[in-house]
Amino acid sequence: MPDFTLQSNETAVVFIEYQNEFTTEGGKLYPATKEVMEKTGMLENSAKLLKVCREKGVTVVHVPIAYEPGHKEISRSSYGILSGIKEGGAFENGTSGAEMYEPMKPIEGELVVKGKSGLCSFHSTNLDFLLRQHDIKNVILGGFLTNCCVESTMRTAYEKGYKVYTLKDCTAATSLAAHEATFEHNFGMFSVPTTSEEIKEAIKVE
Amino acid sequence: MPDFTLQSNETAVVFIEYQNEFTTEGGKLYPATKEVMEKTGMLENSAKLLKVCREKGVTVVHVPIAYEPGHKEISRSSYGILSGIKEGGAFENGTSGAEMYEPMKPIEGELVVKGKSGLCSFHSTNLDFLLRQHDIKNVILGGFLTNCCVESTMRTAYEKGYKVYTLKDCTAATSLAAHEATFEHNFGMFSVPTTSEEIKEAIKVE
Amino acid sequence: MPDFTLQSNETAVVFIEYQNEFTTEGGKLYPATKEVMEKTGMLENSAKLLKVCREKGVTVVHVPIAYEPGHKEISRSSYGILSGIKEGGAFENGTSGAEMYEPMKPIEGELVVKGKSGLCSFHSTNLDFLLRQHDIKNVILGGFLTNCCVESTMRTAYEKGYKVYTLKDCTAATSLAAHEATFEHNFGMFSVPTTSEEIKEAIKVE
Amino acid sequence: MPDFTLQSNETAVVFIEYQNEFTTEGGKLYPATKEVMEKTGMLENSAKLLKVCREKGVTVVHVPIAYEPGHKEISRSSYGILSGIKEGGAFENGTSGAEMYEPMKPIEGELVVKGKSGLCSFHSTNLDFLLRQHDIKNVILGGFLTNCCVESTMRTAYEKGYKVYTLKDCTAATSLAAHEATFEHNFGMFSVPTTSEEIKEAIKVE
Repeated sequence: MPDFTLQSNETAVVFIEYQNEFTTEGGKLYPATKEVMEKTGMLENSAKLLKVCREKGVTVVHVPIAYEPGHKEISRSSYGILSGIKEGGAFENGTSGAEMYEPMKPIEGELVVKGKSGLCSFHSTNLDFLLRQHDIKNVILGGFLTNCCVESTMRTAYEKGYKVYTLKDCTAATSLAAHEATFEHNFGMFSVPTTSEEIKEAIKVE
Repeated sequence: MPDFTLQSNETAVVFIEYQNEFTTEGGKLYPATKEVMEKTGMLENSAKLLKVCREKGVTVVHVPIAYEPGHKEISRSSYGILSGIKEGGAFENGTSGAEMYEPMKPIEGELVVKGKSGLCSFHSTNLDFLLRQHDIKNVILGGFLTNCCVESTMRTAYEKGYKVYTLKDCTAATSLAAHEATFEHNFGMFSVPTTSEEIKEAIKVE
Repeated sequence: MPDFTLQSNETAVVFIEYQNEFTTEGGKLYPATKEVMEKTGMLENSAKLLKVCREKGVTVVHVPIAYEPGHKEISRSSYGILSGIKEGGAFENGTSGAEMYEPMKPIEGELVVKGKSGLCSFHSTNLDFLLRQHDIKNVILGGFLTNCCVESTMRTAYEKGYKVYTLKDCTAATSLAAHEATFEHNFGMFSVPTTSEEIKEAIKVE
Repeated sequence: MPDFTLQSNETAVVFIEYQNEFTTEGGKLYPATKEVMEKTGMLENSAKLLKVCREKGVTVVHVPIAYEPGHKEISRSSYGILSGIKEGGAFENGTSGAEMYEPMKPIEGELVVKGKSGLCSFHSTNLDFLLRQHDIKNVILGGFLTNCCVESTMRTAYEKGYKVYTLKDCTAATSLAAHEATFEHNFGMFSVPTTSEEIKEAIKVE
């Protein structure tokens, strides 16, 4: 039994980058995330969590990342992870890689965040705007990559005063070592690390 | 002759909300902006400025505002201008009002900002991300409304350290009094108020 | 009677720049603000409002602006209002101009915002951090200048989803025309314009 | 030899939390950081780097964290790392723990960031304001803790478009495992991980 309670009307589940590039055979990053996804069962766990959130009236927020052809949003002199995305042509609008993973597609009435060009789900998007307009206090985070976009989003959400919950069984990185190291060393500082099972129990309908 | 110079490779022109809702007969806010648009000639001036910016290699950035049907991005207990937008059903995706004004439509290679759900063009969008990735120092602002989105964008751009230029002949408000009062009292604090004629002369190709 | 209610435990009053530079004979900007301060009675009204907020348990937040000697925080090539502050040597730490106006000085337990180097009370400060940590939903704004720092703060607070109240009788600009024009044209879009009398009535102790 | 060059007039070194709480016997967190500090020699390395940066005209920025007595800045229902800081009474203004570590104290003309109440050096402070006013493009990061404040600062700086350099020999965490894991898995995505030796060679006087 979890030692916390989440009122559905002040809680949002934020699903970060459930897109074919990560989730599906043929996706450019699928070979890199496959091992951890299988190990944590995060795709199945996330779909089940999504179902419960929908039933219980939790605000569902989807955060895709996408670039126009040519990745012109990113600097020609980029470095680090953005350079990898640009060179690899990943998450290009109009390709199947950029499309949402079928079982996690938004349905009518759900919020889809726009503008994500960087890693943190807040920095270049309307995520904070949406959460504030909906009076959200608790933010549950799942998705990709544990130590990249999920972690940046967690850190910013914490600074902004949200109560943040991170899900070890609904996240994946490009190696199990990275997945586990960041949960072990970093996630407890900026969130309540937990599991989708606990979250499902903790949600109370308003 | 302007007393400033704008190097094209570090300058962006940011066109805010050139959408039918404001610009075109039938648009929900056209009756409100018509008088000032005609008085300042801002539609014609903006199109001419856009042409010169394209020729001289200035980074062109378009900032539309848009909402999903039902305006679910905005709180049910909204107040102020967002309440007006929601109640009026303005800028709804899929309607002609939300479409870009034909003469100002983006062409290939131009940047289109995403996520704008509020008034400031920075707050809920990837505008800052795009400007930083493109090493932009100077920001030229035109569009709607002088004292609403243009002014909020100007104020934030100034705080962020950009050199901001505002164009009295490429902006419009819902009344001439509002247009003139905010230029008179506010714009000089946060920008270099100027005209499209001066800007066109000031741009130097890298 | 106001048509709104403010629960004291989710309400903050934010007093912006009640410093001698603006409020007191000898202050660098006192000659500019004197007329409007006298006209609106904002110093007396603010002190009375502060007293009631303290009695009723409203979170009191003070937002001073200050610079180190030499104003090294501001660019050598600054323009606009920051240039004026730097050239005028205003709000320099260690001078009486930077000190808080005696009747509005913080008392123990009140929050004093740090970092304000720009105009918006959020942009370069810990204001949002403090408000979120204290679960504040309603923000009441008073201070200087109506159309500069107060207006920028109001605009950002609105984007961030706070319910914003602005006080025509607790703000001042450098001219009555500026004070009135911005209230007339701008403040209703981003806040509930009201008076300190109404606020005092609207506050309900938790 | 480093494969990069840093022009001194567009480069800032940002020293994060060189305060007795971390650096000095008697500091509340000294027992936790001692091992890694000794292992990496980060205190000596940082002091040497500071000296060279001063000689070569690099903009030096100090980022202390501090709280008023009672840590009233932090929520009564805080969790995660802020809860630990509040309960431990760490970095309280007026205590020796909050004071700057003697060899790294700011000298006249250097920038001292204000407002830091959270972990990221940008979120609640005037850091971005200062960097933009000084036309900084390159940001060199050292300090505490590798995987907490340094990492959050690195992630945000990257999103904001700075070229970020992180120094494995000028940072420390509360365990060597945390220090090394975050460098191994995370720092390459958001920065150029390097050493103070390389930085010192790479700096070119304007």
